[in-house]
Amino acid sequence: MGKKCIGVDVGGTSVKIGLFEVSGELLHKWEVKTRKEEGGRYILDDTADSILKRLEELGISIEEITGVGLGIPGPVLPNGYVEVCVNLGWRDCYPERELSKRLHGLPVKSANDANVAALGEMWQGGGKGYHDIVMVTLGTGVGGGVIIDQKIVAGRHGLAGEIGHIHIREDETETCNCGGVGCVEQVASATGIAREARRQMASKDMPSVLRSFGDKVTAKDVLDGAKAGDPLAMEVMEVVGHYLGMALAQVSMTTDPEVFVLGGGVSKAGQFLIDAIDENYKKFTPISKNKGKIVLATLGNDAGIYGAAKLILN
Amino acid sequence: MGKKCIGVDVGGTSVKIGLFEVSGELLHKWEVKTRKEEGGRYILDDTADSILKRLEELGISIEEITGVGLGIPGPVLPNGYVEVCVNLGWRDCYPERELSKRLHGLPVKSANDANVAALGEMWQGGGKGYHDIVMVTLGTGVGGGVIIDQKIVAGRHGLAGEIGHIHIREDETETCNCGGVGCVEQVASATGIAREARRQMASKDMPSVLRSFGDKVTAKDVLDGAKAGDPLAMEVMEVVGHYLGMALAQVSMTTDPEVFVLGGGVSKAGQFLIDAIDENYKKFTPISKNKGKIVLATLGNDAGIYGAAKLILN
Repeated sequence: MGKKCIGVDVGGTSVKIGLFEVSGELLHKWEVKTRKEEGGRYILDDTADSILKRLEELGISIEEITGVGLGIPGPVLPNGYVEVCVNLGWRDCYPERELSKRLHGLPVKSANDANVAALGEMWQGGGKGYHDIVMVTLGTGVGGGVIIDQKIVAGRHGLAGEIGHIHIREDETETCNCGGVGCVEQVASATGIAREARRQMASKDMPSVLRSFGDKVTAKDVLDGAKAGDPLAMEVMEVVGHYLGMALAQVSMTTDPEVFVLGGGVSKAGQFLIDAIDENYKKFTPISKNKGKIVLATLGNDAGIYGAAKLILN
Repeated sequence: MGKKCIGVDVGGTSVKIGLFEVSGELLHKWEVKTRKEEGGRYILDDTADSILKRLEELGISIEEITGVGLGIPGPVLPNGYVEVCVNLGWRDCYPERELSKRLHGLPVKSANDANVAALGEMWQGGGKGYHDIVMVTLGTGVGGGVIIDQKIVAGRHGLAGEIGHIHIREDETETCNCGGVGCVEQVASATGIAREARRQMASKDMPSVLRSFGDKVTAKDVLDGAKAGDPLAMEVMEVVGHYLGMALAQVSMTTDPEVFVLGGGVSKAGQFLIDAIDENYKKFTPISKNKGKIVLATLGNDAGIYGAAKLILN
């Protein structure tokens, strides 16, 4: 087995690539543009060319590489089959086989990118040292990944870790992107938090720093306002904390992880956000004092390349 | 490795014991009374004596036995440690080591009884042929077990599979046994269904067959009434189906099993209960048509011995 491995995180804008020691040290990282033309047919060519070129520049032979992990923005079946990957234009393909072919038969293992990011955070990020984690990524949407015994739980239909689409809010009336109503994503994503702020501004009379932003209010405005003690922003964050805390409690009663790792743009609010969630999480899990704690992700946008690299080592 | 194995399911009233072929065939089953005196110190003695005596009667040598699985009505840590088992009076002990010692060093593996029952249903029951199942036992309380890749997910703090204590009902005001409010158990256990019926009888004017039972109404009365078309009983079952469907949907978004296996006394309502849940489960999982289906447990009270036997084969 080689001493190094490669993690590839295919995104809609760029393909991120990392060269790692198998011990977890990131040696080099770089990106190539995602060429989505013609059903994304050039993406794996570009990726393989870039990897081979970089290895040559670094004087590293392909024999030194254990293998390549591949994070894909869509569902991946256990045999590596991808039925459809909307963001890349891929349909009906086996990306791991195709990338392997272009890399002289190096082993390639693929998985869904949100799950891969969770694996990365477990390996070298906020969940380092733990074997059972659940990652919740609070970005434009809400993604997630469940890791048990250091392995991704993909689910039999690729739905495991879809924390953003846990139905949670009974009084919601608008429809979520998934077609459901009352999903976690609708209240705890950046867009969800902004929407909740607009609702509260419209339904309440109290003055607030948020009003100066009007309909352009962002999740960051809300979090900054709440930290500064703005009452309306605090009420918005109470709603967010209530539902996120409830969702984490539900996950705890299902798989009981060691830690929840919060990532994504919203998690930049740091300990303030953790406190808002934790209070509610505790309220909904009185069954035991011993339960998962909530920590922050630390790898940012690199979680995907770390997790992909770990994927091939598992 | 021997060709046979033994499953032991320790309950508060009796210890159930089953002798199995490793292929899954139940050869003999019997029970011994659970002696709870003096902190339950005789339970494992009685169990071991009974096993050795029965093997002798059957002319089976101990070398033919691969090992013994042990289901315990309380949390079991991965190293076999039991801090406290209220129903048996046990405290601060390692039951698997103690039983092994009494059985001439036969390998013994223990786990929580609800998780073990889930493993049994996966092996030879309603979940046979599947590797990823979630069992939900609707009895006096609501128990559960999560199986992934044929193995119990116990959780890092022994809370995995506590489906009964998923917080789900926001308008609940009474407190659950766990100390929480609005748990699945409060609405979907036999006691929860009866309580919901009493509430509906008190708050609504409509005539109902349930009224003749008064405060003694049972879950079975409700299910029989709903099957027969009694409007009030049907309304109770709508509430039950709503919350159970929601809970299964939440579990699907976390671990995405192949099937949910419903057991316990309430599940005797059969397909009628499945239909009541499934309609709501589908409503809360519009994200995909491909997802876990809902089936009935088939092993009844034997699920525990089956699962315990499988435990030692894993």
